[in-house]
Amino acid sequence: MSTAAATTTERLRRLAGTARDADVDVVLVAPGPDLAYLVGRSVASHERLTLLAVPSDAPDDAVMILPALERGGWDGSPAEAAGIRFVTWLDGEDPYAALLGELGDDLGAAAVDDHLPFLHAFRLQSARPELRLRPAGELIGELRMRKEPHEIEELASVGAAIDRVHRRIGEWLRAGRTENEVAADIAAALVEEGHRTADFVIVASGPNGASPHHEASDRVIEAGDPVVVDIGGPNPAGYNSDSTRTYLVAGGVPDPEFALVHELVRTAQRAAVAAVRPGATAESIDRAAREVIEQAGYGEFFITRTGHGIGLEVHEHPYIVAGNTRPLEPGMAFSIEPGVYLPGRFGVRIEDIVVVGDEGAVLMNTSAVDLITVQPSVE
Amino acid sequence: MSTAAATTTERLRRLAGTARDADVDVVLVAPGPDLAYLVGRSVASHERLTLLAVPSDAPDDAVMILPALERGGWDGSPAEAAGIRFVTWLDGEDPYAALLGELGDDLGAAAVDDHLPFLHAFRLQSARPELRLRPAGELIGELRMRKEPHEIEELASVGAAIDRVHRRIGEWLRAGRTENEVAADIAAALVEEGHRTADFVIVASGPNGASPHHEASDRVIEAGDPVVVDIGGPNPAGYNSDSTRTYLVAGGVPDPEFALVHELVRTAQRAAVAAVRPGATAESIDRAAREVIEQAGYGEFFITRTGHGIGLEVHEHPYIVAGNTRPLEPGMAFSIEPGVYLPGRFGVRIEDIVVVGDEGAVLMNTSAVDLITVQPSVE
Repeated sequence: MSTAAATTTERLRRLAGTARDADVDVVLVAPGPDLAYLVGRSVASHERLTLLAVPSDAPDDAVMILPALERGGWDGSPAEAAGIRFVTWLDGEDPYAALLGELGDDLGAAAVDDHLPFLHAFRLQSARPELRLRPAGELIGELRMRKEPHEIEELASVGAAIDRVHRRIGEWLRAGRTENEVAADIAAALVEEGHRTADFVIVASGPNGASPHHEASDRVIEAGDPVVVDIGGPNPAGYNSDSTRTYLVAGGVPDPEFALVHELVRTAQRAAVAAVRPGATAESIDRAAREVIEQAGYGEFFITRTGHGIGLEVHEHPYIVAGNTRPLEPGMAFSIEPGVYLPGRFGVRIEDIVVVGDEGAVLMNTSAVDLITVQPSVE
Repeated sequence: MSTAAATTTERLRRLAGTARDADVDVVLVAPGPDLAYLVGRSVASHERLTLLAVPSDAPDDAVMILPALERGGWDGSPAEAAGIRFVTWLDGEDPYAALLGELGDDLGAAAVDDHLPFLHAFRLQSARPELRLRPAGELIGELRMRKEPHEIEELASVGAAIDRVHRRIGEWLRAGRTENEVAADIAAALVEEGHRTADFVIVASGPNGASPHHEASDRVIEAGDPVVVDIGGPNPAGYNSDSTRTYLVAGGVPDPEFALVHELVRTAQRAAVAAVRPGATAESIDRAAREVIEQAGYGEFFITRTGHGIGLEVHEHPYIVAGNTRPLEPGMAFSIEPGVYLPGRFGVRIEDIVVVGDEGAVLMNTSAVDLITVQPSVE
């Protein structure tokens, strides 16, 4: 059996273990990151049902139901080598009844992929009203949130790729250009530096930076603007980068509070990084960043959680947020991205990805977090 | 009020009408194509809840719940101008309870966006177990499937863009290159010719063509190979192209059955196009194509439905499939894409997008459907 097939077998068995512990009879996995994690292959999700059913008492008897026209794509796949049985259906047939028929009559509880579109979940429930559905995300998250060594290598590799893009910021960011123009150049650089696609490119200049999820606009960047640049995407293996730096465009008259706020956010971000260690709770990392910002009197302007897990998804477990009392464990990977957002003026966010190591945080990003003033390039 | 805001108001009112007819009290619309249709703006869907709630008895009092950090992105939007009320929530708060609180205690039935991830639907249901959830897709589909004149213009424009790519196929497709190499060039051309992104690029050569959803691989294309090229993506306004041609690579010894099968599929495709008229059922269009292929003895190798609606999604209502007895109406837009798939040998698929006009089908694609043999380019 290939390494990939052995990985699939091993992950299905571990998933079945978490499902048994949760009194779940079967886990139903939809196209997307969960399926990619389990079988090493991502397929498009659409209106035709594809689901991998993993019985908790017999993970080696997993069944994948899929449209007949998709079957060929799985020829020779690790999923096939791992012994997953493929059941196909044709346009016009009822795949929900077919899947439930495969699984037998005595199912009590099914865990359903968090990502499954509601329409599919509704039809499945309608086909067997007595089946108890619950979200599968926490079960699969138990596996996905602890990265294996080769996954950490992927995160380090894609982290280095996004660092290279940040180090090139002076090629593109200058007064007189629009955010959209800068973003288009950055998107191309993401791909040049090793990303499969540019998944998101936030270029938020001046007052736009005060909206944490502003993307990019036709606003013309001015001298003296702070500019939040939050960028990332997947590498060919599907692992994501996500890194933010807040730059200052040279010249003009910067907001007099900007340098102070940048230093505050930098300090908060480093405090949170320093707090990472096995056994610390997820919320304690949020607290470490928030305390620095609150003590400086800016608490009301730090309007987001501190971070999110990352891997095959840009946002996944564990979330670094108040209320999440889960203790961190070696191999967990997440962002640390405190920010201060001053409405109508500017925003500052600094973000790195870290992996929990035995001794503390291992940084996946190494580009400078000091304030960088971008000078006009000489042409 | 701007045109865009007036469009939003008018569409919300029409949606409320279809909801009242279906005894639904509120329609819950998720980020994605349905939200884009209603408010003219697409936002990313993720683990933080965003939902537009449209009360069926008061569509002018629609409420959008969204993360506080996303609020800035809606400043000055048509949604705001149309009077949609924004309710924000912060990380750590419960957006499900907050939304239900806004909607009041006497809700009976809620229609939920087909695309809403299961996790959100589950939490909403858990927050109010007595609320009856049902899919909203057919309600919103009633609006979306009848294209307005400006939407037909978008489909024609993006159809012309994909036609230009097909007409350039000789630049890229030749023996000795891999499917992936050809696909990468086609993807770049999609963007050059006016698509926002290359959403899908299928290059299925030789036996790979027998799998309708084969994408592209490292297979080296050979002289004499049939090659299915099925490509498309959204234009900047979000309307999608989707067009398939099956080419023959010059030289070699083509499968002796290929020319016959290509002509058969071409005839079936044109028969289905000719059958389109207001009042004909969706399934009668499928039948028109299928009859041609069945009568030639190839029925068992036509393993897909004949087509799918298209617009803001690549696949949407109406589906051109046996069992869909819905009568076609002017403005409906869909693909007509019969195929014959001979396992281990080759496949043929020909696909155009049509819009139902008063007199019959209006083709959004005009590149030739005759068999094109791609000659080696002179370099």
